[in-house]
Amino acid sequence: MRPSHPPLPTPSFAGQDILSVSQFDRTKLDYIFGVAHEMRVLVERFGGADLLQGKILANLFYEPSTRTSSSFMAAMMRLGGQVIPINNVQYSSVSKGESLPDTIRTLESYADVIVLRHPEVGAAATAARYAAKPVINAGDGVGEHPTQALLDLFTIVEELGQADGLTITMVGDLKYGRTVHSLTKLLVNYNVTFRFVSPEILRMPDDVLDVVRGTGHTYDEVESLPDAIAASDVLYVTRIQRERFTDLAVYDRVKDLYVVDEELLTQAKEQMIVMHPLPRVGEISYGVDDDPRAAYFRQMRNGMYIRMALLASVLGRA
Amino acid sequence: MRPSHPPLPTPSFAGQDILSVSQFDRTKLDYIFGVAHEMRVLVERFGGADLLQGKILANLFYEPSTRTSSSFMAAMMRLGGQVIPINNVQYSSVSKGESLPDTIRTLESYADVIVLRHPEVGAAATAARYAAKPVINAGDGVGEHPTQALLDLFTIVEELGQADGLTITMVGDLKYGRTVHSLTKLLVNYNVTFRFVSPEILRMPDDVLDVVRGTGHTYDEVESLPDAIAASDVLYVTRIQRERFTDLAVYDRVKDLYVVDEELLTQAKEQMIVMHPLPRVGEISYGVDDDPRAAYFRQMRNGMYIRMALLASVLGRA
Amino acid sequence: MRPSHPPLPTPSFAGQDILSVSQFDRTKLDYIFGVAHEMRVLVERFGGADLLQGKILANLFYEPSTRTSSSFMAAMMRLGGQVIPINNVQYSSVSKGESLPDTIRTLESYADVIVLRHPEVGAAATAARYAAKPVINAGDGVGEHPTQALLDLFTIVEELGQADGLTITMVGDLKYGRTVHSLTKLLVNYNVTFRFVSPEILRMPDDVLDVVRGTGHTYDEVESLPDAIAASDVLYVTRIQRERFTDLAVYDRVKDLYVVDEELLTQAKEQMIVMHPLPRVGEISYGVDDDPRAAYFRQMRNGMYIRMALLASVLGRA
Repeated sequence: MRPSHPPLPTPSFAGQDILSVSQFDRTKLDYIFGVAHEMRVLVERFGGADLLQGKILANLFYEPSTRTSSSFMAAMMRLGGQVIPINNVQYSSVSKGESLPDTIRTLESYADVIVLRHPEVGAAATAARYAAKPVINAGDGVGEHPTQALLDLFTIVEELGQADGLTITMVGDLKYGRTVHSLTKLLVNYNVTFRFVSPEILRMPDDVLDVVRGTGHTYDEVESLPDAIAASDVLYVTRIQRERFTDLAVYDRVKDLYVVDEELLTQAKEQMIVMHPLPRVGEISYGVDDDPRAAYFRQMRNGMYIRMALLASVLGRA
Repeated sequence: MRPSHPPLPTPSFAGQDILSVSQFDRTKLDYIFGVAHEMRVLVERFGGADLLQGKILANLFYEPSTRTSSSFMAAMMRLGGQVIPINNVQYSSVSKGESLPDTIRTLESYADVIVLRHPEVGAAATAARYAAKPVINAGDGVGEHPTQALLDLFTIVEELGQADGLTITMVGDLKYGRTVHSLTKLLVNYNVTFRFVSPEILRMPDDVLDVVRGTGHTYDEVESLPDAIAASDVLYVTRIQRERFTDLAVYDRVKDLYVVDEELLTQAKEQMIVMHPLPRVGEISYGVDDDPRAAYFRQMRNGMYIRMALLASVLGRA
Repeated sequence: MRPSHPPLPTPSFAGQDILSVSQFDRTKLDYIFGVAHEMRVLVERFGGADLLQGKILANLFYEPSTRTSSSFMAAMMRLGGQVIPINNVQYSSVSKGESLPDTIRTLESYADVIVLRHPEVGAAATAARYAAKPVINAGDGVGEHPTQALLDLFTIVEELGQADGLTITMVGDLKYGRTVHSLTKLLVNYNVTFRFVSPEILRMPDDVLDVVRGTGHTYDEVESLPDAIAASDVLYVTRIQRERFTDLAVYDRVKDLYVVDEELLTQAKEQMIVMHPLPRVGEISYGVDDDPRAAYFRQMRNGMYIRMALLASVLGRA
């Protein structure tokens, strides 16, 4: 089935929680990307498969995220499973003061796997400590959002064949952007070169740069996107969010610094890709959408494949 | 399977969007009503069918509508498909400023078909322009709500055998009532006589009357419901909504003008039907519910059959 | 299949509504607990069954209850059925003034069975009067919540083999606690001894005590939990809710009167069980969770089995 992978040993995620990108080494990444690619083939040929028929996902979102919750729902459904969607929990038993562990232990008595989005750092780890069933972290505040990082890296591998040898340029809010921190931590498993493009006040934090340096990777930091574009194999664009700024004058100065448009792309490689975690608000112009290098909608679809792979894996069916 | 229809050519809706009643000519109406009738038989005999197994509907409602969203969900489920319900989107990625096209392109990367309810006229058309997957308009503000009009007309055909030759009486708020406008535009495909019953200030608008006249149909406009009831084959009742009036004194004068009750029905034909898009608030008395001519709950059920027919058709399975 | 039950006659719930615990005599309780036990075996061995494939549940919640709504959803899904979740209805057609009967008659035109949670006493009975399809009461305000009482009693039977001969201790808010009232009314079908532990102002109401006395059962009322624990086979703990008190000084005096902790359990029998309808807020300490006598999470799971049994029964598949 997967001749490109060594036959033994295969990493097993059965019964495990998915809480952090730090759980994934190169072997596990290869494995989960192999399964995700198979999921893509299954969906493109047959629409899905029945691997998780009879299984139930509790999709527990303490804060709204249409994109992520829909992606997990679709992933479960395309594998033949069913989903209990739980939104707006703040108005429900939680508002009566119930603790997260009790909510989790209740839900696992109904479901086979729990996906949790929660505004507090560490919530997914807490949930996993109390749950006997697998818990998948769908974002815990400014903490982690591992499936986002996995789908980002999977997109690079699917689009460009492999990550090794690539120049990865990240642009925008590198200080607060959780996605670029997690993706960087995954990318150090590969032989890549980093370019970080941001205004001085939104530079990549030292702890992330330490990881890059500590693993022997080279990087540079620049403020000008046009200077960085030509050498890039991947241009990962993030949004500069107004709510990060106490001084709106500062926000106004940086918010439109980086706009990826058709003119910028004339200086880019033919084979590069433009990525974005979405939603975007002007940092990629709509004219770029029809360029074959615009990978952000395919990136969304890859999110479903990664989540299919993770759900099937933790439930012991992949 | 459908001996009453000519074998060739069959209209195909595969891959198409359902945005407006203006897409439907007599041939297409006959086709979709034929499929909807088959759906009715399937549901009554077997509860449903597996035509859409493995397919996913993204049910995207930017404003609440329990009736319509539940009807589409049931339609998808009775065909073996699954549904991602997306409500309260205003609190989600949309509130982060995402555009409708980006939301649609994200959802179509997960789902096979999108149903959209949106408060702005033209939203469904915009969505359809960006989506590669079929989009079905479930109401775009004061614009269109084509599945409502189709289920209304389907109800007339199912209940009375055919629409040709009937006298169709519409009563209530004919000025703002979106349903009566759309139904009228569909009915001009048939040989019907129209009676419009409303107070002067809530008369059928000229653009709709132009369609009636332009297609050579006769109509009359009266203010008295008792005068109109005896000749009616269909009595289509609408609600006069308080929120349409800036002057509440005017509302108070007209709100209870038309009440369909058991006494009124003594003057009606034995074979006529009373319809209402629901919800009702007093314009049809509860005593009428047990009259066999009260068709409004069967009308609800026909909505499910029409939506089953449309979903199966646009997904190439009917 | 069920050799422990007399072969004839079997009670049939097909097409019936589940509105009140008063519908259940000993024969019906035995029957539904037999089916629920089979459901448990099915889920533990196979994850579920396909008894309700093609069936649709309309899960109509006029007030939020994550626990109960999720439990019904899981129950339907584990039987192969599908669920239309309808929450926040107050913002929908209901807010346009639609009556409950019209909402119910609309939903039953889409679904095969309706579960209703509503803040008003008698709402489920009203719904059932208008619906041709089965209605299951999932709580009507301070009225009834029969599936809660059934799962409570089922838990006692599953955990301890039978209810006859047991001493049942209920502790906390016995005045306003709907669950203890309903459970008591079910338990009088068995040969049990009651102990009611509460502060004077939260004593079990006279109408419930009348039922206990009228069926020839003995009970005592005490204020001290340590005095009552040693003889208890079942300790049913309820929460004392702040919102019941107009005088918060009174609430502060009683709120922490009863805390079940590891020390208290040293005085309890080896084979007893601790139950709680959840959510809890401090009345059972977390240290108790790992004690095998802590039955409250198994109780949650039993809720799913009871609801599976009821759904299968009213739909004629059990």
